[in-house]
Amino acid sequence: MSGLRVVAFGGGHGLAASLRALRHCVPELELEITAVVTVGDDGGSSGRLRAERGALPPGDLRQALAALAADEPASRRSAALFQHRFADGGPGRDPLAGHAVGNLVLCGLMELLGSPVAALDHAAGMVGAVGRVLPMSCEPVGIEARVRGADPRRPSAVQTVRGQHAVAVTDGRVELVRLTPEGPRACPEAVAAVGTADWLVFGPGSWYTSVIPHLLVPELAAAIVASPARRLVTLNLANEAETLGLSLADHLAALNWYLPDLTVDVVVADGKAVGDPEPVHRAAESLGARLVLAPVAVPDGGPRHDPAALGAALVPLLGADR
Amino acid sequence: MSGLRVVAFGGGHGLAASLRALRHCVPELELEITAVVTVGDDGGSSGRLRAERGALPPGDLRQALAALAADEPASRRSAALFQHRFADGGPGRDPLAGHAVGNLVLCGLMELLGSPVAALDHAAGMVGAVGRVLPMSCEPVGIEARVRGADPRRPSAVQTVRGQHAVAVTDGRVELVRLTPEGPRACPEAVAAVGTADWLVFGPGSWYTSVIPHLLVPELAAAIVASPARRLVTLNLANEAETLGLSLADHLAALNWYLPDLTVDVVVADGKAVGDPEPVHRAAESLGARLVLAPVAVPDGGPRHDPAALGAALVPLLGADR
Repeated sequence: MSGLRVVAFGGGHGLAASLRALRHCVPELELEITAVVTVGDDGGSSGRLRAERGALPPGDLRQALAALAADEPASRRSAALFQHRFADGGPGRDPLAGHAVGNLVLCGLMELLGSPVAALDHAAGMVGAVGRVLPMSCEPVGIEARVRGADPRRPSAVQTVRGQHAVAVTDGRVELVRLTPEGPRACPEAVAAVGTADWLVFGPGSWYTSVIPHLLVPELAAAIVASPARRLVTLNLANEAETLGLSLADHLAALNWYLPDLTVDVVVADGKAVGDPEPVHRAAESLGARLVLAPVAVPDGGPRHDPAALGAALVPLLGADR
Repeated sequence: MSGLRVVAFGGGHGLAASLRALRHCVPELELEITAVVTVGDDGGSSGRLRAERGALPPGDLRQALAALAADEPASRRSAALFQHRFADGGPGRDPLAGHAVGNLVLCGLMELLGSPVAALDHAAGMVGAVGRVLPMSCEPVGIEARVRGADPRRPSAVQTVRGQHAVAVTDGRVELVRLTPEGPRACPEAVAAVGTADWLVFGPGSWYTSVIPHLLVPELAAAIVASPARRLVTLNLANEAETLGLSLADHLAALNWYLPDLTVDVVVADGKAVGDPEPVHRAAESLGARLVLAPVAVPDGGPRHDPAALGAALVPLLGADR
């Protein structure tokens, strides 16, 4: 066997945590890592590049590249450059303030090479990435949600919240999320990677704006269902604004709601975050999965995955015989 | 002998032509190339980064890096990325329009690493540069000129024109150029490279705004005079706005005016550009140099040096025994 082909889905910090954990498996497992990344961001530096230049929002792609950067000093420095954000330069207007250098590099590469995949492959080389980063779609997508109580004065009213950033920070309760336009084309290379994978890994991450969007890209959803790969879900350690009121069991049920044909082999969760494991256990079982509890949070008690701890939990799961 | 250490002085397109010619010498001569670059630019993308962020103007540094980029595909692509200029993105304000990606990368690296030299060494690695690029000073410098007839309605009036860009495009006749503030500190690594060089190469390039500025940095001028290296001057093929009315002999005399202790070993010029060689021959001789005429222009008759032709002319000169 030439190594396990792992495709990790997500966006932002959650996907970066997943990728860092997978890297921690590498001394013990030979992994070929592919990250498939949401392209719905419309906030901050990415949102500006998208609005002003029509760019594929680069921020989540950049984070994934940085998480996969090689350990030798020049690659670490290039990754730090990608992550470096221009502060306000001083008096007067400062049009660069807030942009991450890597976002500008990716934007330039996509313009220069005319292909997001070629741009990402080149950028991966610049940071010596130990894996490949692909967008879920080569076109930017919009995210909108039906939200109850987004206006605190009308807690039972339902309204549509538009844009990934607005959905991610909404005060209300997300009832339904969808992409606009519906059914975007998938990135062909991402579909191909899913088709030949040994493992598909979902989460952790912003559930509605980083994890579920992949299931709403029809060709990607079909490839996920059809893939011979086993499937692993890593649950979050704490809720975010967009998942207010959503239990961990509800997180798993949401995957089933958006992709009813999805079956899962393993669900990984932190025992402390789970509390009473019974409902999560039952929700996992209804997807066909067993629940594995492991201490995967950072030691300081913050709601962040510890890459080494999550990696240690993943090694026996990914390495197990079918 | 471990190779000839060559330091090339200049800025912009002229320095890039010099560096490309030096690379053409490499199959026959082992060269260690160091570019020492002016940092006076205040126009375009560099000027904006300088004004808005206090950055060392990166454009001339970027051009030198691109000229030294390795020939293999990934390095060529990174160099093309550095040179890629953001076009206007479309409707609405577009704050990135006009910036070269490499300028933003250099600006980010200088902020991140806190040192222009460390930033340039890292950027050189990103393009696999076959040499080192250093700024003449680690602080931006201003250039101003005493110009006669800058105002066409008063052709004999003298006025001060401020800023490299304004001097480079002036309609009048430059009588004197100086840096502001006068006597900036030199980049220590540039001074060190001059001290251990086998050859110092000046020009081609914008004489007043790219070549002579190096002679106005006291520590650099002192290092040039004290260096055991031999010195070669490549003359321009045509005049620019800033050197209107300046003969090629005057170009050589100007070097002597700004650095009276400078001696030169070889002056290279294109026979067609020189016309009657006698005055240039005499001007070279007064610097201690012999004049070498060679066909070094591009074949299409444009006033640009052909890297292969200039390289072929340089090989026997640089490789000659002292």
